[in-house]
Amino acid sequence: MNTDTNLNALFLGAKSENADLFKRNLLQLFDDHAQWRKNYHPEDADIINSSDMEKTDFKFTKNKMEDVMKELSSKLRAGSIPWHSPRYLGHMNSETLMPALLGYFAATLYNGNNVAYESSPATSKMEEEVGHDFCKLMGYDADTSWGHICCDGSVANIEGLWYARNLKSLPLAMKEVCPELVEGKTEWELLNMPINEILNLMEKNPSKLDELKNHSARGMSNKIGKLGKWLVPRTKHYSWLKAADIIGIGTENIISIDVQDNYRMSIENLKKTIEDLSSKNIPILGVVAVVGTTEEGAIDYVDKVVELKKDFAEKGINFYFHVDSAYGGYARSIFLDEEYKFIPKEELHTKYLQHKVFKNPDFNWPSDDIYNAFKAINEADSITIDPHKMGYVPYSAGGIAIKDKRMRDSISYFATYVFEKSMEIPALLGAFMLEGSKAGATAASVWAAHKTMPLNITGYGQLIGASIEGAYNLYVKLKEQKQYKIGDTIVDIHDLVKPDFNMVDFVFNIHGNKDLAKMNELNHLIYDESSFVEGNVYANDFITSHTEFAVSDYSNSPLDFVERCGIPKEQWKKIDSVTLLRACVLSPFLNNQIIFNQYAEKFDKAIEEKLEKILNSHCNLK
Amino acid sequence: MNTDTNLNALFLGAKSENADLFKRNLLQLFDDHAQWRKNYHPEDADIINSSDMEKTDFKFTKNKMEDVMKELSSKLRAGSIPWHSPRYLGHMNSETLMPALLGYFAATLYNGNNVAYESSPATSKMEEEVGHDFCKLMGYDADTSWGHICCDGSVANIEGLWYARNLKSLPLAMKEVCPELVEGKTEWELLNMPINEILNLMEKNPSKLDELKNHSARGMSNKIGKLGKWLVPRTKHYSWLKAADIIGIGTENIISIDVQDNYRMSIENLKKTIEDLSSKNIPILGVVAVVGTTEEGAIDYVDKVVELKKDFAEKGINFYFHVDSAYGGYARSIFLDEEYKFIPKEELHTKYLQHKVFKNPDFNWPSDDIYNAFKAINEADSITIDPHKMGYVPYSAGGIAIKDKRMRDSISYFATYVFEKSMEIPALLGAFMLEGSKAGATAASVWAAHKTMPLNITGYGQLIGASIEGAYNLYVKLKEQKQYKIGDTIVDIHDLVKPDFNMVDFVFNIHGNKDLAKMNELNHLIYDESSFVEGNVYANDFITSHTEFAVSDYSNSPLDFVERCGIPKEQWKKIDSVTLLRACVLSPFLNNQIIFNQYAEKFDKAIEEKLEKILNSHCNLK
Repeated sequence: MNTDTNLNALFLGAKSENADLFKRNLLQLFDDHAQWRKNYHPEDADIINSSDMEKTDFKFTKNKMEDVMKELSSKLRAGSIPWHSPRYLGHMNSETLMPALLGYFAATLYNGNNVAYESSPATSKMEEEVGHDFCKLMGYDADTSWGHICCDGSVANIEGLWYARNLKSLPLAMKEVCPELVEGKTEWELLNMPINEILNLMEKNPSKLDELKNHSARGMSNKIGKLGKWLVPRTKHYSWLKAADIIGIGTENIISIDVQDNYRMSIENLKKTIEDLSSKNIPILGVVAVVGTTEEGAIDYVDKVVELKKDFAEKGINFYFHVDSAYGGYARSIFLDEEYKFIPKEELHTKYLQHKVFKNPDFNWPSDDIYNAFKAINEADSITIDPHKMGYVPYSAGGIAIKDKRMRDSISYFATYVFEKSMEIPALLGAFMLEGSKAGATAASVWAAHKTMPLNITGYGQLIGASIEGAYNLYVKLKEQKQYKIGDTIVDIHDLVKPDFNMVDFVFNIHGNKDLAKMNELNHLIYDESSFVEGNVYANDFITSHTEFAVSDYSNSPLDFVERCGIPKEQWKKIDSVTLLRACVLSPFLNNQIIFNQYAEKFDKAIEEKLEKILNSHCNLK
Repeated sequence: MNTDTNLNALFLGAKSENADLFKRNLLQLFDDHAQWRKNYHPEDADIINSSDMEKTDFKFTKNKMEDVMKELSSKLRAGSIPWHSPRYLGHMNSETLMPALLGYFAATLYNGNNVAYESSPATSKMEEEVGHDFCKLMGYDADTSWGHICCDGSVANIEGLWYARNLKSLPLAMKEVCPELVEGKTEWELLNMPINEILNLMEKNPSKLDELKNHSARGMSNKIGKLGKWLVPRTKHYSWLKAADIIGIGTENIISIDVQDNYRMSIENLKKTIEDLSSKNIPILGVVAVVGTTEEGAIDYVDKVVELKKDFAEKGINFYFHVDSAYGGYARSIFLDEEYKFIPKEELHTKYLQHKVFKNPDFNWPSDDIYNAFKAINEADSITIDPHKMGYVPYSAGGIAIKDKRMRDSISYFATYVFEKSMEIPALLGAFMLEGSKAGATAASVWAAHKTMPLNITGYGQLIGASIEGAYNLYVKLKEQKQYKIGDTIVDIHDLVKPDFNMVDFVFNIHGNKDLAKMNELNHLIYDESSFVEGNVYANDFITSHTEFAVSDYSNSPLDFVERCGIPKEQWKKIDSVTLLRACVLSPFLNNQIIFNQYAEKFDKAIEEKLEKILNSHCNLK
């Protein structure tokens, strides 16, 4: 029997086509809960009686609540973005999975707190399973790895940096507390100890573990300044500056690595930076590779970073390695077979045909670069992965997986063994993560999604495939179409780059225009017309997002593209920034060519109307 | 007309008495959403057709989802804690408010992301309103303060420490970047500059603001070590150690201030500590007062800390002041009249009678200490407040309020004015807080609760009042009852302390037992019998939580209590730790004496059975 997922059965639908199915399950879950309350000690009498419900102030309060619900509903409908429609092609949003929505709702009624097992037996177990799912998805060894849900990807990244900072400072602590463990090592060697060796040494003297931790960066801020630099691609600058601020290494210790004109981190520049720093005796705290950059969906050469890491290790230079796949992480499911094994490249196309991952049998994805990058993710020390992005679950659900669960001892407040003697699940998850109290409902939501749709080619792989193919349909359309004709004015479309994943960036430019400021103004106006800024989003025909590539962030990586738009180099030097439109294609329906064509027509009509309006009111642009 | 809240109308009820009301609103909110989808461009055709729904793989996937929902419901019912029943008296949990549950559910369907206004116009506005609510509740000036929702109280506390660290390091940065601003000041004076003065100086040279920030602790880790010590009461040790680790000041810079035998921070010890440190030229980074300690519900003398702060300011010693009222914050609503003015002490009792805040007209709460503490909270630089505790909303919803919104410039990545020129609401909230992506649904949930129930004596004050009175009913019961008779064995009950708030801690001891290890074992066994450890929580008659007071955390503060239990001092010296049972009374129904008596009877029966079982199987304890 075919056990591939039919995505149509898992979404409420752009037109609420599955409303009855949703409602039936919603009511069942609610009734189950209501009866659960009622049947907990059936002998306990009602507290709120019918006569209480007749009281004036009961009615007053009840009516007030119902009025608030009506007001809430009105505000939500007036001020929410119609993610559910394929007319929305902007941020990493679409409608979310029914099982995730229902799971969240049901679990909220029970309101478990996953900070402690005692407060959430059911949902703590679900979070443990979800953590295992993350590890399985990422190709980590099930016995030695660990993962958990975070409130979001920023916090997962902060946690990754927290691990790096504390772990890399431990050899300095050993020198102070257990010098015999690191006898004869220079400070440079201590600061360049491989993570695995640090973890092995940590186990040597359990009675000194607490003292060791007190002498690490956890306990003493004076260690932090020695740890060196945190290297991140330019495409991910902002969130890491924030993380460096919070975790106390300071933004001055973030180094941006150049990206190529495909927006992937330049391995050459990375190598050169590490060499330069090392030659000045400045250690490398860690390196970040991004799988799915926020603004381009670019996928860094993870495998090449891994190779580089090995090369430098031979020279005694070791750094922590974090993969930020907040956006792209779930896409690894498209490479996993029914047994969660990474499918060999040569079998991939056959498998895709067999499971109908792509509707178009000729669609050729991924390139070798992308394949190799996804394959190598399991070499990272820690990985960020956000269920609320490509996991299609509602906010807020981020996540992190770590390669070696012993790493937890570097950030936890209790030795892990205290809790793990008798049970698999940490009794106090809050001791092993940045957050404290956390919704069990998030775990239930992600759990229900994973349980319904396996994290492999038969489940999530289908959904990710639909999204990627939809994005390529859009990319090809723009590529082939090239321009719009608005009255006498020809407006060109330029795509930024062939997408690595499911994001299509593009700009409009008046044919022949060589003025970057004008081009930016045009695209900004189109964005204003295609977003919630002041207007009525519900009446909008097409909604997208935008981004700016400025020299301060991107250096000159966008120059080639700007020139392709017909803008001379001097303009780029002068204006320093280019505005793009940014369409992340998450809709699960745009892989269907018929549906795509229907929406492409709506898209064209909307763009033409917007351009017409803009050109009529901004004569300077023509 | 009486506009006080009738709490019976706002909870689903221990026996789901309001199930119909809940269901009606649930369905209406869902239908509203489903129709909103459908009517977004009515001309767009259905994507999922009836014929699609007939397909084998559609049915397969749909059935699978429905099976997962059934499994989820079963797991939730088997492994959730019955917070909804007054038989549950443990952690800070009870059932949550219907408007909050419904609001959360409704908003999840729309799935706004409050990281950016563009992604959540409706719920971002709600979060802004909730932030104002926090400030109003805390007595901050509406025009100059600011607040937002955090994922939880731990993160709010980390954010408080982050503000303190960055702000207090700014004068050092000024010395480097704009020396004219701090001319003639010694390092000691720089490190002791009042927060308000720092904020004023920050505004002097806007063009240098970014450089200034880059030289603060945000940018340079070498500043952190100079900032001095963070002083917290012993009762709040653990979460602040974690915060100090994360924020990079190091756990060595946390100093625990002794608590009195009422578990409030000793002002004397605080004063002495500040004097000692200052005499050694060690600055005070900040002081934390706790309003509602996690294990005792104790309320620190906030007003006396404020007084001390003023006294030290006259000597040139200035520190940041954070109030952690994650637990107790909402209780400030019981002191606010319909106009949100803090009610004068002499009018309080009359107001309570007028609004029927307490059922028992003779119930006399608060003491002057507690009243003064709540009143003074608005002197803090920042305040943690958790809606998911005494706000009765589902997880995860923490919050923070800051006294002066200019403080945001010390942690934000963009100057606030960039966003605030044209709109009230930050366009990118993620730039002003630790987290990134965050559920708009949380804001909708808290907003709906606040909107239904004002944060004053007519709304939340009623609910907080019910909870406090319920706790006192339990306290008085235990106090008067004194013991249980189990066969020939008499088991004494000892209460820890008269509760400041709504938490009752107590221990059982076999009459005449002088062995602390035995007493601890007995209470641990009672806890095991009254919790989810291995057993079936759904069949349990009474559920509570427990805590341990160890010398390592509490020093000798628990000694008096231990002696009151009949345990000699030497035992305390030997065993070093006492186990207590901990009942946080959040149920909104136990202020009703009839209901309370009903449940007190069930409580007695359950305790007797548990004691009997334990004593029979542990003869060593008798």
